[in-house]
Amino acid sequence: MRALVWNGERARVVDRPDPTASEQAIVRVTLAGVCAADLEITRGYMDFRGVLGHEFVGCVEDGPEDWVGARVVGEINIGCGACASCSEGLERHCPNRRVIGILDADGAFAERIALPLSNLHRVPNSVSDEAAVFTEPLAAAFEILEQVEIQAKHRCYVFGDGRLGLLISQVLHTTGASVTTIGKHPDKLALLTKCGIATRLLSDWEIQPEQGDIVVEATGSPTGFARAVDATRPRGFLVLKSTVADAPAIDLSPLVINEIHVVGSRCGPFGPALEALANGAIEVEQMVAEHFPLDLAEAALRKAAEPGVLKVLIDCS
Amino acid sequence: MRALVWNGERARVVDRPDPTASEQAIVRVTLAGVCAADLEITRGYMDFRGVLGHEFVGCVEDGPEDWVGARVVGEINIGCGACASCSEGLERHCPNRRVIGILDADGAFAERIALPLSNLHRVPNSVSDEAAVFTEPLAAAFEILEQVEIQAKHRCYVFGDGRLGLLISQVLHTTGASVTTIGKHPDKLALLTKCGIATRLLSDWEIQPEQGDIVVEATGSPTGFARAVDATRPRGFLVLKSTVADAPAIDLSPLVINEIHVVGSRCGPFGPALEALANGAIEVEQMVAEHFPLDLAEAALRKAAEPGVLKVLIDCS
Repeated sequence: MRALVWNGERARVVDRPDPTASEQAIVRVTLAGVCAADLEITRGYMDFRGVLGHEFVGCVEDGPEDWVGARVVGEINIGCGACASCSEGLERHCPNRRVIGILDADGAFAERIALPLSNLHRVPNSVSDEAAVFTEPLAAAFEILEQVEIQAKHRCYVFGDGRLGLLISQVLHTTGASVTTIGKHPDKLALLTKCGIATRLLSDWEIQPEQGDIVVEATGSPTGFARAVDATRPRGFLVLKSTVADAPAIDLSPLVINEIHVVGSRCGPFGPALEALANGAIEVEQMVAEHFPLDLAEAALRKAAEPGVLKVLIDCS
Repeated sequence: MRALVWNGERARVVDRPDPTASEQAIVRVTLAGVCAADLEITRGYMDFRGVLGHEFVGCVEDGPEDWVGARVVGEINIGCGACASCSEGLERHCPNRRVIGILDADGAFAERIALPLSNLHRVPNSVSDEAAVFTEPLAAAFEILEQVEIQAKHRCYVFGDGRLGLLISQVLHTTGASVTTIGKHPDKLALLTKCGIATRLLSDWEIQPEQGDIVVEATGSPTGFARAVDATRPRGFLVLKSTVADAPAIDLSPLVINEIHVVGSRCGPFGPALEALANGAIEVEQMVAEHFPLDLAEAALRKAAEPGVLKVLIDCS
């Protein structure tokens, strides 16, 4: 099959043996999405080698009879199945986990991908492929609701108007809380305005506003943490949603003095994400910037790395 | 009256007018304790000027009739009484607060101190002055139990065997959880061993142990944060209990990947602290290193700054 493979120096579309189905399902990938983490990997993140990509929708081609033909999305963490984390259903924190396209497991920028059945979720008919491919990042946004209790009375600030920031803003908005998203791109922020979410340009953020009960840092900028701390009220919650390759100098004293809770947040639950896509609570298709065929996947990565570009998709079948 | 005053350059015992009692109580200070924050102030922390000290026990000398003569300890934050934090009973997070001996309010290394009645707590008869003077730092240790639910099944690591680390270790131990305290001083750790708490020397901490459900950073060291992150299990809680003047370079990615909760923790509830002292659940008197008379308070500060010294007390009456 064809697949976009990172060899440590270059991402190239090459021929690759098809995966085999032992104790797994083989999914024929329909559509895959490029994520910031894919771009980070090509800059050395995780020291990964293999097929890139972890956001996808596809159809089960090989596996148990009742699964074959099913349209599915897949959770990206593959646990060992034997440790304490796995026995609690927390495969995504298994110390021996593999992660498709990120850690010791081939990813989704390919014609086929192998995954354990337990990673698969059936996609409701009302969800298009273009929407379903957002399930994984949307689940990561829903993770915040599993970690912090957000009520209608709360004031939320989301820093970052990238792909994840836009999803997070919409997810927080579903709670009835007041959400303001702060970003650098008027065109991206406009997508939120259409959903009834308040927005501000980062350049206008100088005036000290009322502090947030819940603040989400999703800029990926090394200076973002300190700004987010400043925006959080005493005893408020600061959700860290993006990893930063740098290790910036950080003054931790404000966290202690103001008793702020900092909550690291990574992958999330697929169930609520698929439900929100099915009932139209979250608008994702407007975020699609461009489609590329699998054979031009290298160009897809370059496009996704351009400033201001939202979601780039790869047609894999 | 005599008082230890920090003028920005030097801490000196000087004559100072007695405080007046308008809408407050005047407390004759019996005994006061030197805290790491006092030493930080003499290094420039908070840019404070005035009478130092915030840990004390004393007797009400002037105030409402039913309070005069009462033996009391005092909460250190004085709220404005008008803001949202104060109306929630959270004077310690009032944005306009004064803090005795730390921020815009004279402290307790003096013959007398003025405090609002609402800051005072009566000391049970069974609690000695030498124990009562630990109420404020012990309350700060009890704050952790207000912020994180600690159960008997949990594994707790406390980094730091200073004054606060020893109190925190004992408070966590009251929950029935497994507590291990990691420090540099065998003699201090031995105080915990007597209470049935496991201890380890930091120099033996190289081997990666099982990670903690709850980890407390109380070393005050700039490198302490990264070590504490490493010791926290995925989805575990890391309680930040000491402020560090430096802003170390910090890699935040492990917080995101392991979804760690970082909880800043400052002042705490006096009620549980006084109760624990009254019923003997916490052992504090063994931590007293030396008493100094108020006129030698400058020497008391120097003594408290010596490596390895636990609690230095100042006799103010």
